[in-house]
Amino acid sequence: MSEPIPAPDDLVLHEDRYFDPDPAVRQTARSLYDETRDLPIISPHGHVDPVILADDSPFPEPTALIVLPDHYVFRMLYSQGVPLERLGIPTCDGTPVERDPRKVWQLFSEQFHLFRGTPTAAWLSYELYHVFGVRKRLTGATAAVIYDEIREKLETAEFRPRALFERFNIEVLATTDAASDPLESHGRIRESGWQGRVIPTFRPDAAFRVAAPDWHAEIDRLSTLYGSSISDYATFIRVLESRRAFFGSLGATATDHDSEVPLTQRLPDEEADRLFQRARRGEATSADQQRFQAHMLMEMARCSTEDGLVMQLHAGALRDHNQPFLERFGPNTGADIPVATEYTRNLLNLLCAYGNDPRFRLILFTLDEATYSRELAPLAGHYPALRLGPPWWFHDSIEGMLRYRQRTTETAGIYNTAGFNDDTRAFCSIPARHDLARRVDATWLARLVARHIVDMQDARDMARALAYDLARDAYRFA
Amino acid sequence: MSEPIPAPDDLVLHEDRYFDPDPAVRQTARSLYDETRDLPIISPHGHVDPVILADDSPFPEPTALIVLPDHYVFRMLYSQGVPLERLGIPTCDGTPVERDPRKVWQLFSEQFHLFRGTPTAAWLSYELYHVFGVRKRLTGATAAVIYDEIREKLETAEFRPRALFERFNIEVLATTDAASDPLESHGRIRESGWQGRVIPTFRPDAAFRVAAPDWHAEIDRLSTLYGSSISDYATFIRVLESRRAFFGSLGATATDHDSEVPLTQRLPDEEADRLFQRARRGEATSADQQRFQAHMLMEMARCSTEDGLVMQLHAGALRDHNQPFLERFGPNTGADIPVATEYTRNLLNLLCAYGNDPRFRLILFTLDEATYSRELAPLAGHYPALRLGPPWWFHDSIEGMLRYRQRTTETAGIYNTAGFNDDTRAFCSIPARHDLARRVDATWLARLVARHIVDMQDARDMARALAYDLARDAYRFA
Amino acid sequence: MSEPIPAPDDLVLHEDRYFDPDPAVRQTARSLYDETRDLPIISPHGHVDPVILADDSPFPEPTALIVLPDHYVFRMLYSQGVPLERLGIPTCDGTPVERDPRKVWQLFSEQFHLFRGTPTAAWLSYELYHVFGVRKRLTGATAAVIYDEIREKLETAEFRPRALFERFNIEVLATTDAASDPLESHGRIRESGWQGRVIPTFRPDAAFRVAAPDWHAEIDRLSTLYGSSISDYATFIRVLESRRAFFGSLGATATDHDSEVPLTQRLPDEEADRLFQRARRGEATSADQQRFQAHMLMEMARCSTEDGLVMQLHAGALRDHNQPFLERFGPNTGADIPVATEYTRNLLNLLCAYGNDPRFRLILFTLDEATYSRELAPLAGHYPALRLGPPWWFHDSIEGMLRYRQRTTETAGIYNTAGFNDDTRAFCSIPARHDLARRVDATWLARLVARHIVDMQDARDMARALAYDLARDAYRFA
Repeated sequence: MSEPIPAPDDLVLHEDRYFDPDPAVRQTARSLYDETRDLPIISPHGHVDPVILADDSPFPEPTALIVLPDHYVFRMLYSQGVPLERLGIPTCDGTPVERDPRKVWQLFSEQFHLFRGTPTAAWLSYELYHVFGVRKRLTGATAAVIYDEIREKLETAEFRPRALFERFNIEVLATTDAASDPLESHGRIRESGWQGRVIPTFRPDAAFRVAAPDWHAEIDRLSTLYGSSISDYATFIRVLESRRAFFGSLGATATDHDSEVPLTQRLPDEEADRLFQRARRGEATSADQQRFQAHMLMEMARCSTEDGLVMQLHAGALRDHNQPFLERFGPNTGADIPVATEYTRNLLNLLCAYGNDPRFRLILFTLDEATYSRELAPLAGHYPALRLGPPWWFHDSIEGMLRYRQRTTETAGIYNTAGFNDDTRAFCSIPARHDLARRVDATWLARLVARHIVDMQDARDMARALAYDLARDAYRFA
Repeated sequence: MSEPIPAPDDLVLHEDRYFDPDPAVRQTARSLYDETRDLPIISPHGHVDPVILADDSPFPEPTALIVLPDHYVFRMLYSQGVPLERLGIPTCDGTPVERDPRKVWQLFSEQFHLFRGTPTAAWLSYELYHVFGVRKRLTGATAAVIYDEIREKLETAEFRPRALFERFNIEVLATTDAASDPLESHGRIRESGWQGRVIPTFRPDAAFRVAAPDWHAEIDRLSTLYGSSISDYATFIRVLESRRAFFGSLGATATDHDSEVPLTQRLPDEEADRLFQRARRGEATSADQQRFQAHMLMEMARCSTEDGLVMQLHAGALRDHNQPFLERFGPNTGADIPVATEYTRNLLNLLCAYGNDPRFRLILFTLDEATYSRELAPLAGHYPALRLGPPWWFHDSIEGMLRYRQRTTETAGIYNTAGFNDDTRAFCSIPARHDLARRVDATWLARLVARHIVDMQDARDMARALAYDLARDAYRFA
Repeated sequence: MSEPIPAPDDLVLHEDRYFDPDPAVRQTARSLYDETRDLPIISPHGHVDPVILADDSPFPEPTALIVLPDHYVFRMLYSQGVPLERLGIPTCDGTPVERDPRKVWQLFSEQFHLFRGTPTAAWLSYELYHVFGVRKRLTGATAAVIYDEIREKLETAEFRPRALFERFNIEVLATTDAASDPLESHGRIRESGWQGRVIPTFRPDAAFRVAAPDWHAEIDRLSTLYGSSISDYATFIRVLESRRAFFGSLGATATDHDSEVPLTQRLPDEEADRLFQRARRGEATSADQQRFQAHMLMEMARCSTEDGLVMQLHAGALRDHNQPFLERFGPNTGADIPVATEYTRNLLNLLCAYGNDPRFRLILFTLDEATYSRELAPLAGHYPALRLGPPWWFHDSIEGMLRYRQRTTETAGIYNTAGFNDDTRAFCSIPARHDLARRVDATWLARLVARHIVDMQDARDMARALAYDLARDAYRFA
């Protein structure tokens, strides 16, 4: 390696990063990556707040942009004993927190070594280097200078959200929105005349959690949108169908569903109504909720066969594991922990009923990698309706992606998978995540080529499919 | 890589395919493979129909040989929306299907890209190239020419089943046969004077599924063979023992058992008889069946200690996941899906009773790779009776084999494993599957050599063991 | 590879063993390993008998040193049909065993090929080569000569236990000791004036197994040490607290707990006392025991927050799987088999109660690799109290360590792990195990460097952390 040695605190992104070190594999990987690196970004599943693109206001400052909204970042510091209060994470219980974003940035920078070997380090390095032009490694010593550098950029027109959206070359960006969301931001984006394709995704989970304290509020919001009270199950279904249609009118092509245990089971309508009435009286138990959710997954699949929205199902996260932490910091703060997940038996009813229907499409995500080769690839290699979503959350990483392809391809091929999605709340990390995925796919393919499992011709088609075609097709964007 | 570049539609099988790309590893792999590539094939477990070798008639035509009997092939097309009716797969419910094999072959060829990166592509490429001498890639454009090329060959004497058996250098081929199978084809093979060693395997599953609709028919078939009605459990056991002896007289060295949950538990004989009588009255429940199966696994182990037949146990497939599909296309059509499987507790009774007995041998297969390092290797690294079967079904693949060796060897060594078997219904794919396995084993060993975990001397012994000795020894063929 | 070819029976340990074969990766691995190879050994968790270092008597002879105490060794021979009686393993039932250690050594040497590709082979090769200066491969032909060579060395002063301890450069060695152990050997070591740091670890499992036949004896031993009868739960807790303090006074920094199912659940004190009384009357059931153990894990965590002892929890081994074998050879003889293990739900109570407490530290071990990326890394990447112990037992191996780092780092980083420990009963294997771990960590890191995931600067810090700092910090040795 006779390359010039960078100064110790230079931030360097090697051109061949994440590729296999074997020279022949690396050269092939680079040549495959060269064909996909500039393809537009398809982002069919994520959590960017659409108000950012509706308002198109400048981002406030680096800490609010990079640290505060990203639980991948602050959970790691928390795990090493840094109180979240010192990181300025807002509390629900009134505990005071650090208000000076420069102090938070300094603390975060001092702890940046904790991310060594993690995708967060890879994404942030890309974001700093390519999005913000930073050329120094982030450390305690460089924190203040880098903070100022980014803050200055954020004040310029080129760093407004829509300008970045265009610079990132995003062809379509899907957000995730509650069933009761009026989609006001989405409406404003459409009306603004701006051409960026930002579309909602219908996520009705809150309306199905009949035993949760906030269920009534969700039903009330839906009632308000509907214009009259939702007093029975039949009306509930009609409202959901009408919301799905409304989402569709704003460009949605998909729904999204979360499930701790992905049980699917149709109930007779009368029984569904009994459960619904029990919930209205505030008497639904968690067993009731599980049955109602299992039934509603069947109903959502039924709707999908009719309105063509692609159904996404994410299973296996036990939400809010840390009770005292939840009480202080609220949900979605890095304390959701996966559990072993069963798909073969749990999805049997849904797949028997709809899995052979050419109108239906189900995209499945897991946090349990043991299911890749055991359950998911065999299911996807059989049912026409099923596609496997990309490695999700903790597994959206270099090794995670390699494991996913190594364990699913031999049974399901790549054409039963749905390409990549970034699943991120952090808008500026989008290109970083897609770039990493394209590099990892290129190195996985290059290893197939080097072992003569596929030839270069095939690998080129496959690289493009993984980076672009599969997501576009799976989510019916074409 | 300064090798001559093949024309885009040439079918090329690279000499070093599947080996690691690192030049030193590759050279070692090649030299290990050179020592095993021409060893005779031991095929101790598979599903070839023995009538093929009893009749020795020419194979009909390419589609009937390659597409129709291979659910690895047609399930992939089905998963991508190709109706099986268009592939000519026979239906149980009278739905008409495509009858023109050339049209089916064309459709299959057009979809061949779906298999990129799968072992099916590797096996078929070998079969086309080495068995049939095809030199063009299979695509929609080449389909018709290749079809004719193969069909012509199939009409010649060199492509008769026995000629291929000899050309494939098969030392022994075991089929899989119901307990009630009269083994007529096996008898004819023996009587024909042909020297090919084709032996049956005793698979009594249907006789143990006391709650299944076809159980009575199986008992009736056994009764007919036995010459009188099987009206109690004691007679049932006597008949099974006599069938085992009959299988043994035709060369069988093994039995084979399938189990969704590999529970083992001995019942008192009176209770076994009560279950048996309930089954005779058509009153057995699925819970009864599970208990009866758990008991019969104990009984089969007991018989094995007495007659020396090696016991094989395959666990963890949920059969016929897709009900509407089953009703149309029947079983064994690619809709069996694995489930998480527990061995440590389920096999405890059987292993405590027979696992220390030097007369007993149990070969265990799994579809749940999480059990390799967690349960199976620790069990095989302790119990003298236990050997691990090769990676099974979905895991009989390049990455699957590497994972298997990487996860079992450090605990169990290679000498507690049973070598390779092809488990195939597709006779002409046998040499392809063994060749692939020998290549993958060679590259796994070469990586051990390159990392100085074993030396070349040891690796040579191990390569031969994996390709030949272990299977021969595990199945008591010597 | 133009290196001189060794004679076929030379024992050769290649300088670059276990490193990746790619030349660039290998060179980086070597340079990282060069920085850690001579660091002192931190051995915070193991099973060496402290009497060895208290007495400092010569080791008797090779078989008693290398074969008899190491169930990794003799279980493999047993699994291949070698009766343990012929290996001289003592029996509980009076069955006579081989008494001539030379015959046992001969038999072991003849079967040494069984260990090809296992860490046992790697460890023993290091031990023979580096500890005892052997230069021939161990085979049936060389067995006798090597036996004599080692035996002669064992008689010299340099091979006394304390001399080896110093030569091995052990900075601290923790043993594992029952709650009722009077720690007499530890006392003698301290009083002897010898400066070697040998410390106990508090392992109270036997006192929590209230349904086990030997529970009463354990309580009696504790009563004797305490000076009066332990007749109620409150006294039991006081005694445990006092034992923890006594262990601490002899240098202990940690406790150790084994659990088949790592359930944690606090009981009201009155209920704990009812269970305790039931146990005293000999009426405790295995369900009682499970509840008591779940409660005692909460209590031990509570104590840890007060006395600062680090809590270790090992879960998922089903002990003594082979009943007839247990009756003949007793426990800890290689017949413990892992089971699937759940952490997310089972540890919820303990982590909610203590996982956010800066005084508490929990180090978690697993035998179920499926939990690395699914449960353990997400938990460790969130809770400040949690560190992941190194790959344990069957997974303490080259591939096992690589899988561990590949599956935990991207979510938890390396700073939520606890470095390496050897967990061994075999004193002379300690340097072999640490050397192997340092080599594997170096190659893992070198692959990160070669793929530009971390740079060389970071990799150097990480290598030192993995070899030394993390264990020292996790176990509070600093």
